[in-house]
Amino acid sequence: MIKVGIVGGSGYTGAELLRLLARHPYARVEHLTSRKEAGKPVTEMFPQLRGFFDGLEFTAPDIAALAGCDAVFFATPHSTAMQMAPELVSRGVRVVDLSADFRLRDAAVYKQWYGHAHACPDLLEAAVYGLPEIKREHIRRASVVGNPGCYPTAVQLGFLPLLEARAVDAESLIADCKSGVSGAGRELKLGSLFAEATDSFKAYGVAGHRHLPEIEQGLVGIAGPAVSLTFTPHLVPMVRGIHATLYARVKGDLDYQALFEARYRDEPFVDVMPAGAAPDTRSVRASNTCRIAVHRPMGRDTVVVLAVIDNLVKGAAGQAVQNFNLMFGFDEVTALDQPPVWP
Amino acid sequence: MIKVGIVGGSGYTGAELLRLLARHPYARVEHLTSRKEAGKPVTEMFPQLRGFFDGLEFTAPDIAALAGCDAVFFATPHSTAMQMAPELVSRGVRVVDLSADFRLRDAAVYKQWYGHAHACPDLLEAAVYGLPEIKREHIRRASVVGNPGCYPTAVQLGFLPLLEARAVDAESLIADCKSGVSGAGRELKLGSLFAEATDSFKAYGVAGHRHLPEIEQGLVGIAGPAVSLTFTPHLVPMVRGIHATLYARVKGDLDYQALFEARYRDEPFVDVMPAGAAPDTRSVRASNTCRIAVHRPMGRDTVVVLAVIDNLVKGAAGQAVQNFNLMFGFDEVTALDQPPVWP
Amino acid sequence: MIKVGIVGGSGYTGAELLRLLARHPYARVEHLTSRKEAGKPVTEMFPQLRGFFDGLEFTAPDIAALAGCDAVFFATPHSTAMQMAPELVSRGVRVVDLSADFRLRDAAVYKQWYGHAHACPDLLEAAVYGLPEIKREHIRRASVVGNPGCYPTAVQLGFLPLLEARAVDAESLIADCKSGVSGAGRELKLGSLFAEATDSFKAYGVAGHRHLPEIEQGLVGIAGPAVSLTFTPHLVPMVRGIHATLYARVKGDLDYQALFEARYRDEPFVDVMPAGAAPDTRSVRASNTCRIAVHRPMGRDTVVVLAVIDNLVKGAAGQAVQNFNLMFGFDEVTALDQPPVWP
Amino acid sequence: MIKVGIVGGSGYTGAELLRLLARHPYARVEHLTSRKEAGKPVTEMFPQLRGFFDGLEFTAPDIAALAGCDAVFFATPHSTAMQMAPELVSRGVRVVDLSADFRLRDAAVYKQWYGHAHACPDLLEAAVYGLPEIKREHIRRASVVGNPGCYPTAVQLGFLPLLEARAVDAESLIADCKSGVSGAGRELKLGSLFAEATDSFKAYGVAGHRHLPEIEQGLVGIAGPAVSLTFTPHLVPMVRGIHATLYARVKGDLDYQALFEARYRDEPFVDVMPAGAAPDTRSVRASNTCRIAVHRPMGRDTVVVLAVIDNLVKGAAGQAVQNFNLMFGFDEVTALDQPPVWP
Repeated sequence: MIKVGIVGGSGYTGAELLRLLARHPYARVEHLTSRKEAGKPVTEMFPQLRGFFDGLEFTAPDIAALAGCDAVFFATPHSTAMQMAPELVSRGVRVVDLSADFRLRDAAVYKQWYGHAHACPDLLEAAVYGLPEIKREHIRRASVVGNPGCYPTAVQLGFLPLLEARAVDAESLIADCKSGVSGAGRELKLGSLFAEATDSFKAYGVAGHRHLPEIEQGLVGIAGPAVSLTFTPHLVPMVRGIHATLYARVKGDLDYQALFEARYRDEPFVDVMPAGAAPDTRSVRASNTCRIAVHRPMGRDTVVVLAVIDNLVKGAAGQAVQNFNLMFGFDEVTALDQPPVWP
Repeated sequence: MIKVGIVGGSGYTGAELLRLLARHPYARVEHLTSRKEAGKPVTEMFPQLRGFFDGLEFTAPDIAALAGCDAVFFATPHSTAMQMAPELVSRGVRVVDLSADFRLRDAAVYKQWYGHAHACPDLLEAAVYGLPEIKREHIRRASVVGNPGCYPTAVQLGFLPLLEARAVDAESLIADCKSGVSGAGRELKLGSLFAEATDSFKAYGVAGHRHLPEIEQGLVGIAGPAVSLTFTPHLVPMVRGIHATLYARVKGDLDYQALFEARYRDEPFVDVMPAGAAPDTRSVRASNTCRIAVHRPMGRDTVVVLAVIDNLVKGAAGQAVQNFNLMFGFDEVTALDQPPVWP
Repeated sequence: MIKVGIVGGSGYTGAELLRLLARHPYARVEHLTSRKEAGKPVTEMFPQLRGFFDGLEFTAPDIAALAGCDAVFFATPHSTAMQMAPELVSRGVRVVDLSADFRLRDAAVYKQWYGHAHACPDLLEAAVYGLPEIKREHIRRASVVGNPGCYPTAVQLGFLPLLEARAVDAESLIADCKSGVSGAGRELKLGSLFAEATDSFKAYGVAGHRHLPEIEQGLVGIAGPAVSLTFTPHLVPMVRGIHATLYARVKGDLDYQALFEARYRDEPFVDVMPAGAAPDTRSVRASNTCRIAVHRPMGRDTVVVLAVIDNLVKGAAGQAVQNFNLMFGFDEVTALDQPPVWP
Repeated sequence: MIKVGIVGGSGYTGAELLRLLARHPYARVEHLTSRKEAGKPVTEMFPQLRGFFDGLEFTAPDIAALAGCDAVFFATPHSTAMQMAPELVSRGVRVVDLSADFRLRDAAVYKQWYGHAHACPDLLEAAVYGLPEIKREHIRRASVVGNPGCYPTAVQLGFLPLLEARAVDAESLIADCKSGVSGAGRELKLGSLFAEATDSFKAYGVAGHRHLPEIEQGLVGIAGPAVSLTFTPHLVPMVRGIHATLYARVKGDLDYQALFEARYRDEPFVDVMPAGAAPDTRSVRASNTCRIAVHRPMGRDTVVVLAVIDNLVKGAAGQAVQNFNLMFGFDEVTALDQPPVWP
């Protein structure tokens, strides 16, 4: 039984980690920390978990207690994990960070986008980017996994086969992305109010969004430095889900359907849809699966990839559990094998 | 391994049965029938089930094939199960009917509310009403279980402790109920269109709703014939969920909180909330649990009970699997032990 | 041209006042105050009003400037209007308060429910409760109108004919009410977040809600002191709308349809639906109309009234403009004569 | 007073025409036709219009009666207007067709995309494409106006200034568009059911959508034949609204903000937002305005235009009334001058 700690467990990704780990046969959540909610029973904050985590309380973050865990998940905003991870790692704890602290390889890029210096650039260098479809073997051996952002997961999985095959021009990529509102987290922000977000649609972060350098880092890793992406996020009045519509100019002519099917044939959490399909986000609700469809509309020179995930699962907590399974040698699909919740 | 058939599996309750049975360790879905979709692969109708039921196709309903099953679920509209059940039962199949065909004990009442005579009143008499919190031992031995309606489940569980304790006037009961739109099924009806139902709220069936006789039958079974209920259903712009707000005039004075806690202490799927709570429907989304809170506002003479369920789970497919577990001697919570999906 | 000031204009009711007054032929909004947003152009806070209020800025609340107006609307939380109204009234300004400060006749009841003493009990005594269907002539002459709460508007209009006719037992009334989320205002509260409120339904304020004394005050005004109401509010995942489902035990037998039609025949903003109807909240979206239907289900002894309004219009800003029209001698329907927005 | 007829008035665009014309000072709706609903009072089909169109009934389509109108709007599916328009035009009626029958200049293209031959290619040739921002003077004189599709309105208004200025490469245009569900109309289709569309997001028509030739026709009209557009529609779980996110590769360097502001300075229904803004669809709900913002993210070579409209207003009925105003010499904003409904 792996002893698990969750830091910052009072938000949506924390709750989602608890939901997934509740039925993990080899994980036991022993510590769940939150500065603001210390002392509160988990089932008081999360009534939906009554019967699953009775007796567990939020505690104040405490390195000593967390160091007694085998694995610690950080479900915190950026800049918390990088403060605490070095101590934990030095004491043998394996860390999965759901924030951005360990995603960007280049500490200078981190500083540019997050506004402050990285607290442990050495550990950053050793950390592994937690996208199993690319980094599986590294994740197995990692001390620290930087769990990818939600948009970057969908966008990289969608572009991956095309870039690997050098099938498209990597300098004119477009990712038009749409996310449910849970992606904004549980903080009290005007734009997250029901009456602000429902029955409406808008773009945001058009000038530049923190996920852009993370996505480009991944695409460069596949296609080389000549990569340029226009990334436009949008807010959809739904709880969960990310839909990425990706555009790329084709070079030459390929059977794109076969390309995607071959690349993802052995991936347990990437499902390539039949030709002509258009996956909807609800088809992966509460599931760790990414569904993808590739099109070449009107036979013209633009290929269009549609990729859907659940932002809280494959975009956060599910991918974190998938990485945890790899790190501790469990079947990769452990605790991630329930069908989506539909309709 | 119990061989399972599902008749009329192309609607929401059929899909929900598949979701729940996908991970049932002792059930294998062998037949899934639908008149309209015969020949279609299940994963073509339900892409969310890709990877779970690959290879399974809808077939035309065929008594001979279904008779080879150990258990058959009817996820059909009313009047189908009563046509097919007698033959199946005579061949040793155990039946769980999610329609209304086997809920009303009195064939005359059935005819009055459903417009035609009951096809097998003898089997109706032998059938067991599938509310485990009242009929557990009968369900274990039943050949045919009439799975309760969604509203009746929430309303009966909400009123049950008060009526058993003779704590309220049973002739002035009020059930103001609110349901998500999946309760209307997957048929093409104007009122079920997104642009008709979203961002709006209304009552329906005020003059009299088919669930009324079913609820009153259950309440009479507890409190005796002097029962009268005003039942008002409403439509909420959400997918899943039923919230019942129940009103009753108190007789005498009791510790209602203690009453409910005691009555449901040993029930795996009824969760009595702490005093003062107000459960929301999303706290049981995708779960078989019914959460209840009891109030006596302003210390006056009206007790108010709040009861929430997921209409597709405890209100239909989940309760059906719960009954299946009882009928076949499995742990009652088998395949029903996942935390709710939240937010 | 009536010079209008709006205090606390940066929330939903403030925005709704602006929308309605934008096309009022005789009103000109000259002052719009907000402590937090002073200096900000209105169209920066409310882009939807670009082209309608270009040039108008929020200013800090300033009694002297407001005293230059003919009419001032308070769209503030409780306890602001009562601080400022006396000075304004003494300088000849006519006041419409959308908060609770001037609704409750009894200053002791105000203190009991709002937690502090009323700042101007004399002015409270002179103030008029702004429900035109009952107080029309008083409103015409009022210096201060206490604009009713949203739930109280729907509930009083729904019960009114029955109580006036002594047709029901006034000591066992039940109001089961459902509101869209804009009713909670634009404050940053956890329960108002999209991911908390959408796709879910719950009750709140069950133990006692501030609208209860306001409603009972109104019902007592019609039926005498022997009035007792159980009032249960609920939150619906929609932006606008209140649906009140009212229950009362009948005394004797009346043609309730005719009763309601007669009572409201000459009311421009109360629409009694044909027998058997069930009005939906969207049928009055953005409109000042209250639609009502009355039922006597199954011919039993409970009459059920369904009443729908738009909480921001007839429940707040629309009713305020209706009162303003009465106070200044305009046609009562001025600026309130647009059809609802549907679907 | 212009006598108006509406053919096919029982759907969403028909209801929206009624809402807008209800308060048009110079239009009187005399005929409202529907095959299925003939004989039904309008207020029975549309309770929200009670008090506005009492006495008006749906009638069966009757050319003779319609010929007595001055103006006839067709709110029908494609291929109805082209059957009836020639007769009406020959009798002096001026026609505004909200369907696709008179949008495509080339009858061969019509046949290719709609599956059957055009019934009156001569009238098609004389018809005017009803986008006032481009065709204002032609519309004033037109006998038949082909009212643009919803997506085409947003996309053409968004690209217009860039193409007129030759500022972008017209052969690599991308329009990623998102629409509310009312755009699918009131027909009973599985995908339009609430439980199918809510809380989910998906693309559709990726292989080729009927609006593509209409959009490209418009863009070619500005930029010449070398135009190629990738157009991807998506479905958003909201009632109204279209958000178009447009991508184009820049040629040279311009002050795009100034370009858009200058182009639309005198347009009453196009609002160019301040630099850096991102308009949301609700900011134009129930309004005929199109709001646009132009960005050049990260200073790279792709310009991104965001354009929002209400699909039922500027995307259909509002634009139709705007065209009607031009055709009959009224102030262009007549009956279209109400602020949006917000939140």
